[in-house]
Amino acid sequence: MTQYPSRLLERAVQEFSKLPGIGRKTALRLVLHLLRQETTEVEQLADALVTMKNEVRFCSVCHNISDTEVCPICSDERRDATTICVVENVQDVMAIENTQQFHGLYHVLGGIISPMDGIGPGNLEIDSLVQRVSEGGVKEVILALSPTMEGDTTCFYIFRKLASFDVKLSIIARGVSVGNELEYTDEVTLGRSILNRTPFEGK
Amino acid sequence: MTQYPSRLLERAVQEFSKLPGIGRKTALRLVLHLLRQETTEVEQLADALVTMKNEVRFCSVCHNISDTEVCPICSDERRDATTICVVENVQDVMAIENTQQFHGLYHVLGGIISPMDGIGPGNLEIDSLVQRVSEGGVKEVILALSPTMEGDTTCFYIFRKLASFDVKLSIIARGVSVGNELEYTDEVTLGRSILNRTPFEGK
Repeated sequence: MTQYPSRLLERAVQEFSKLPGIGRKTALRLVLHLLRQETTEVEQLADALVTMKNEVRFCSVCHNISDTEVCPICSDERRDATTICVVENVQDVMAIENTQQFHGLYHVLGGIISPMDGIGPGNLEIDSLVQRVSEGGVKEVILALSPTMEGDTTCFYIFRKLASFDVKLSIIARGVSVGNELEYTDEVTLGRSILNRTPFEGK
Repeated sequence: MTQYPSRLLERAVQEFSKLPGIGRKTALRLVLHLLRQETTEVEQLADALVTMKNEVRFCSVCHNISDTEVCPICSDERRDATTICVVENVQDVMAIENTQQFHGLYHVLGGIISPMDGIGPGNLEIDSLVQRVSEGGVKEVILALSPTMEGDTTCFYIFRKLASFDVKLSIIARGVSVGNELEYTDEVTLGRSILNRTPFEGK
């Protein structure tokens, strides 16, 4: 059991090591680094985190992170509102935006169906997707979920939910290597997978 | 250039990625993790960092991090005040304490002599070490610095500074593998290197 010379230091290390992928040695290193910085630097970090947590919102249309009621993408009239790209999370929106291959709108599910982690369709923004489609004006829904078992399950679930609507359902081309996480795919592969999207057969 | 959906998010990511070893992808991952936590969790992290930065002190005797004017080690009367172990930084104190092989006091230099990084003897707590020794009562000074060129240079400098005093000068046994950082040495090796310390010849 490591003895810390200071309770204040120990508390900071403990709080830091709650973060994913940050062990106690890394936490100690980060904390001692902060201790060597100016007070304003540390206060800026602390303020940035608290302000973000308190003030960040989720777009009422696509559920992406936003500073405003409706996010900049959803409120951008130059974008194609007839196409909705369904993604798992915020990182995936950023990854697809980086490819510059997609000019429609997004729908952020906030996760994928994963019974092992206790995440069912009810925990995700699927009903609000169905609602968006039912309001009309949407011609195509692109399913851009990670090509994993959970991603496929979620695709199939959404396919069934949207089957009764007059909307084209497509899935990004499996140029993305199976088993990988979407957010780490390189831009060329990911961009091509959007251009080469194929009709979703739901089987 | 990555487009962030929120300026608040972007600011938090920027602040996080100033930390050593934290890139923008890792920072985004940590920030989005925090976004999913309770507000109190984020506030606790922020408060722990700012409170630590504002309130943590350095022991007026050994310069270790402390919550009080004199640190718990220096004020512990059961410890052997006739032996001072000289270390580079706080992590090294913690590493040696973990071996449970040393029962004297410490002196934290706050670095080692490294002309390449612009760190000279004047930037380190060497004068205060000489002062402690000159006040009498100290029988032995153990040099427990990393076995690198900078560590050896610092040992030699301290040896010269303390040569005129009636104090035994020793150096931790080079069971510690040369070229490694002290704080990552395993406890057994580090503990043995303290037990097997040898008189410092200064050559």
